[in-house]
Amino acid sequence: MDGSGKMSRVRVVVDAMGGDFAPKETVVGALEALKVSDIEVLLVGDQKSVEEELSKHDYDDSLVTVVHAVDKIGDDEHPVHAMRSKPDASIIVATKLLKSGAADVLVSMGSTGASMASAVMILGLMDGLERPCIGGPFLGMSPKTMLVDMGSNVDCRPSLLLSFAALGTAFSRTFIGLENPRVGLLSVGSEEAKGNRQVQECYKLFDDSHMNFIGNVEGMDFFTDKADVIVCDGFVGNILMKFTEGLGTALGSYLQKGLSSQMDNSQADSIISDLWRITNLPRKMGGPLFGVNAPVVLGHGSSKSDGVSGAINTAVRCFDLNLVDSMRNELAEVTALMAKSG
Amino acid sequence: MDGSGKMSRVRVVVDAMGGDFAPKETVVGALEALKVSDIEVLLVGDQKSVEEELSKHDYDDSLVTVVHAVDKIGDDEHPVHAMRSKPDASIIVATKLLKSGAADVLVSMGSTGASMASAVMILGLMDGLERPCIGGPFLGMSPKTMLVDMGSNVDCRPSLLLSFAALGTAFSRTFIGLENPRVGLLSVGSEEAKGNRQVQECYKLFDDSHMNFIGNVEGMDFFTDKADVIVCDGFVGNILMKFTEGLGTALGSYLQKGLSSQMDNSQADSIISDLWRITNLPRKMGGPLFGVNAPVVLGHGSSKSDGVSGAINTAVRCFDLNLVDSMRNELAEVTALMAKSG
Repeated sequence: MDGSGKMSRVRVVVDAMGGDFAPKETVVGALEALKVSDIEVLLVGDQKSVEEELSKHDYDDSLVTVVHAVDKIGDDEHPVHAMRSKPDASIIVATKLLKSGAADVLVSMGSTGASMASAVMILGLMDGLERPCIGGPFLGMSPKTMLVDMGSNVDCRPSLLLSFAALGTAFSRTFIGLENPRVGLLSVGSEEAKGNRQVQECYKLFDDSHMNFIGNVEGMDFFTDKADVIVCDGFVGNILMKFTEGLGTALGSYLQKGLSSQMDNSQADSIISDLWRITNLPRKMGGPLFGVNAPVVLGHGSSKSDGVSGAINTAVRCFDLNLVDSMRNELAEVTALMAKSG
Repeated sequence: MDGSGKMSRVRVVVDAMGGDFAPKETVVGALEALKVSDIEVLLVGDQKSVEEELSKHDYDDSLVTVVHAVDKIGDDEHPVHAMRSKPDASIIVATKLLKSGAADVLVSMGSTGASMASAVMILGLMDGLERPCIGGPFLGMSPKTMLVDMGSNVDCRPSLLLSFAALGTAFSRTFIGLENPRVGLLSVGSEEAKGNRQVQECYKLFDDSHMNFIGNVEGMDFFTDKADVIVCDGFVGNILMKFTEGLGTALGSYLQKGLSSQMDNSQADSIISDLWRITNLPRKMGGPLFGVNAPVVLGHGSSKSDGVSGAINTAVRCFDLNLVDSMRNELAEVTALMAKSG
């Protein structure tokens, strides 16, 4: 609350230049979010292009600020090199606004690598954490089952996967609302002995932790409600995410044929779009970056305005629920365990 | 051809006791296959139960032989221990019939571990190969795109994955009919530098081989017709297979609701079963075991009779096409390469 007794608005900084359809879709998405949430928006990017896009719409201009940034970092650039050579890129300016306290949350549809590198270097990692990760539910038909890591860390030591499990537990409890989230290790069989070396090494570590570890789970268990937090390294996570997106799209076109002969087009379209929605959840809500010291939500590069506004809503919810503190507390417990076990 | 000028029948030995619904479904499946293919069938298992099941059906008894076996190996037993303690188990007797030349191909719905262990120990591995693997197309909507390894080898050295790629190339060329199969390494990005340590180590090895290596592919590339043979270790392959099966089933029930209100039940059911079919291909055709010295096809433990007859058809086709020799030749090329590169 501010002095007047009004709830103060959450200040969202958006990298307006990030994503395949920026700044058009980032601007439109921000304005859509403005209509449904009590927020203010800071749009960081090329002032002229952002203002040109803004001028096409009606909105309350007391709630929108444009912050100029001369550069942007593309998907094809090496994140750390680009951060050095383009210190005034939009994602860096945006992350610094979050760090300085001028904003409460950050949303980016731009290069995942650059967004993560900026977050780590400017906001810092939580104590005891080696690398950040991305997590969240990824299937609309299993909205309470989350996957961590979705794809930034391809070779993970067991201690890192344990940290990710702790961050996932905090997310599941705080954001999804489950009291005692069940943690499962993704493997090729449910028995303790099943799995590759990495999983076998993790098993004991997970079992000794304070978490509600239920053992190994398998590929089908994303649909069986056996675990709430499914943990794997980013290599497997990324392949699963992209596979699911591809499958959803391919099934859609495949069914289109079968359906269009059996019902009218609008009915068929509604089923297809439903199918797309339930296999592409992160496109609609973005993925929170786990393990950095302030709330950052990353969206898919191909997001349209609804993906941008969805990611903004997710970011606001992370802020309202104080997800960062929950994660820090949960992580502290495993860090203490690791220190004890040497 | 035999002396009479007739094409001689392919002799299929079936582990009649293998699978969740044995011997009922294995017997029925074998009799179904008998109706559509020029085969003879040897059913190995408990004579009394198998004959009891046979007595319920009409069939040409000159084409069916029952071979008694006193034991069977379950899914929950350690394959190698069980092989020692149960030397007369049905899978061992069946594999020995193949080895002796009394049968041309073997089909098993039983424990994958026990079937593989029997095949390796009794039939032997191809020269230069360290372990066998399972491969084949796994998505009905991409029937020419195959995945290898589907799940027996969880930690693979690069040289083993190269061997699997060679076996996959032979399968794609011989069984699927592609002239120059494109081989892709499953990873998290298409660039050479993208991937975990394993993929990065494989890249150069694959690139130096005689195969038509097109580089890394990603999760969505099962649907983009970019590669014909997608190579990953059995950890990732098994997770993908089980994930797809689970997703197909879950999508089916999800859509059932949406569809049943919009069309009559038989139409909805046909779309749902279509969906199930295109996400569960190996259940209908079985998976050939790659790298052993005679044709062996493994089916899903939960197969009903159509899964059994499908696996028998696959096995007959492997025999007719002489897949084992193609695989041996293709493998010899990479073995020579490995020997040269030390």
